[in-house]
Amino acid sequence: MVVSHQIPMGKYATSIDDVRAAAKRIRGVGHRTPILTSKTLDQLAGRKLFFKCENFQKIGAFKFRGGWNAISMLSDKDAKKGVCTHSSGNHAQAVAYAALKRGIPAYIVMPNNSPGVKLEAVKGYGANITLCEPTSEARQTTLEKISEKTGAEVIHPFNNPNVIAGQGTAALEMIEDLGNLDAIIAPIGGGGLMSGTCITTRSLLPNTKLFGAEPKGADDAYRSLKEGKMLPQESPNTICDGLLTGLGENTWDILKDHLNAIYTVSDDEVIKAMKLIWERMKIIIEPSCATPVAAVMSPEFKELKGIEKVGIILTGGNIDLSKIPF
Amino acid sequence: MVVSHQIPMGKYATSIDDVRAAAKRIRGVGHRTPILTSKTLDQLAGRKLFFKCENFQKIGAFKFRGGWNAISMLSDKDAKKGVCTHSSGNHAQAVAYAALKRGIPAYIVMPNNSPGVKLEAVKGYGANITLCEPTSEARQTTLEKISEKTGAEVIHPFNNPNVIAGQGTAALEMIEDLGNLDAIIAPIGGGGLMSGTCITTRSLLPNTKLFGAEPKGADDAYRSLKEGKMLPQESPNTICDGLLTGLGENTWDILKDHLNAIYTVSDDEVIKAMKLIWERMKIIIEPSCATPVAAVMSPEFKELKGIEKVGIILTGGNIDLSKIPF
Repeated sequence: MVVSHQIPMGKYATSIDDVRAAAKRIRGVGHRTPILTSKTLDQLAGRKLFFKCENFQKIGAFKFRGGWNAISMLSDKDAKKGVCTHSSGNHAQAVAYAALKRGIPAYIVMPNNSPGVKLEAVKGYGANITLCEPTSEARQTTLEKISEKTGAEVIHPFNNPNVIAGQGTAALEMIEDLGNLDAIIAPIGGGGLMSGTCITTRSLLPNTKLFGAEPKGADDAYRSLKEGKMLPQESPNTICDGLLTGLGENTWDILKDHLNAIYTVSDDEVIKAMKLIWERMKIIIEPSCATPVAAVMSPEFKELKGIEKVGIILTGGNIDLSKIPF
Repeated sequence: MVVSHQIPMGKYATSIDDVRAAAKRIRGVGHRTPILTSKTLDQLAGRKLFFKCENFQKIGAFKFRGGWNAISMLSDKDAKKGVCTHSSGNHAQAVAYAALKRGIPAYIVMPNNSPGVKLEAVKGYGANITLCEPTSEARQTTLEKISEKTGAEVIHPFNNPNVIAGQGTAALEMIEDLGNLDAIIAPIGGGGLMSGTCITTRSLLPNTKLFGAEPKGADDAYRSLKEGKMLPQESPNTICDGLLTGLGENTWDILKDHLNAIYTVSDDEVIKAMKLIWERMKIIIEPSCATPVAAVMSPEFKELKGIEKVGIILTGGNIDLSKIPF
């Protein structure tokens, strides 16, 4: 592999060396997830697609990578007080699972309207759950109280540089396995996965295009990139429950410099893409995970020239099977 | 690998050499499907499980193997008149796809109450479909008429020795990849997969236990093994739409000598097992495919001693997503 450090060390919160170090920590603890292909999907997209299956990752989502990397890096002294975060989704499971693996307490703040299936999953990893009102303020203040009281380290779901480094290992494995790719596309919520993917890809494959995918109903990154400044996520409205959050300073800092474009997709397109993957590839992906699939199937994306091999990060497969949207 | 020919050549319709030859024909045309594992499933079963994912095979089921092997073996003279079969399920798709690959016509007789999704799939591979009344007699006489009129070769879904040889390649790949296994378990419909699996496994791993799984509502093989003679399938009643048929002379001949046991499972157990695989492994399997999973989760199976590593053939993932049974 040609290693070309296109990004000066120290320019961002996370470097390619951080990603490589994260990969070593993750090896043997997480799964090196398979990359699947489908001739039918290739035909529909008009190019070759490579699906990095993070739905097969520990806890069913890429979030394991960042959670484990950040938690395994804590000193024994810091770690023994435990870790905490607020999340109703895959990051909560990632932190709970990583804490269980390290043998330290996890404190998870979850909104009191979280689906039972998600509460059960987090409980299943032995975490202490605190329910709060379903507002950003309540989540933040509850988290601060718990952190203060317990001394537990707050693990931010995407702005934490070690989380970004962990998420960058998915692209690292994909590039190691496939060599060159003309483009890589992944969903953007808080931007942890996408910024880690940017660091990895720009360092190893400087000419590869980097695309984000967002729901039209939560398109803050799209608007931010257009305006050239980080805009907040305002009243998101989408089926993609993993992409409701706004960006962070550290993730935006990377995304603004390296993203080639962001494609936005409707919830209808997401549901169609999700069903397509279930039907043709026989694997389960959650709605947020279907955004890049919907993007590559869009007429706009199909018009792109000079892009033959596209890597798609399938981010997760955690969906309540009693609430399938088709 | 220790090659121990426990089965004299010529004893059955299909030999290990036939399976090996089939493997060569299938290589590069079909997928060498992955073998997945799950710690959660291992814990639930109380032993190590290895899932051979034929739901990722061409046409979404292992049936591709037998269909392709039989059709690719036809002489050019025989092949040019085409192939025909009656099936409303995965074998229909396998024959249609294999014929398309070989560039010859396929004539498929399907009952006129076949779900639209199955008709579409077979049509999608360019086959000529003839609808008939949904009775065994109508299917058989319609097929005979078509074969007579066109000269197309009838490809029996399971009693054809070359189909059995093709189905035996799934176990062959599994044994090549994993080495020793204490047991292999697969569903039994007409017995094509299970008899091919017996030939392969008894030849390569003489001491490995061979188990079948059947729905309680279509337990002809279970009853046959108990009685020591091939009994017909009588008014089957199960959600497992791929396991409704009776055995054939060639498959029974092998099964009666080599099966260690057949486990029968209720439709409720099948649905529970299917949901478990969807939720925890993030892959889609159809009801028939869930029977061996349900079997290994049963108290009866858990009591077995001396069986640590179990290979499970996940046979297919073709399910109408608008009719998920949970």
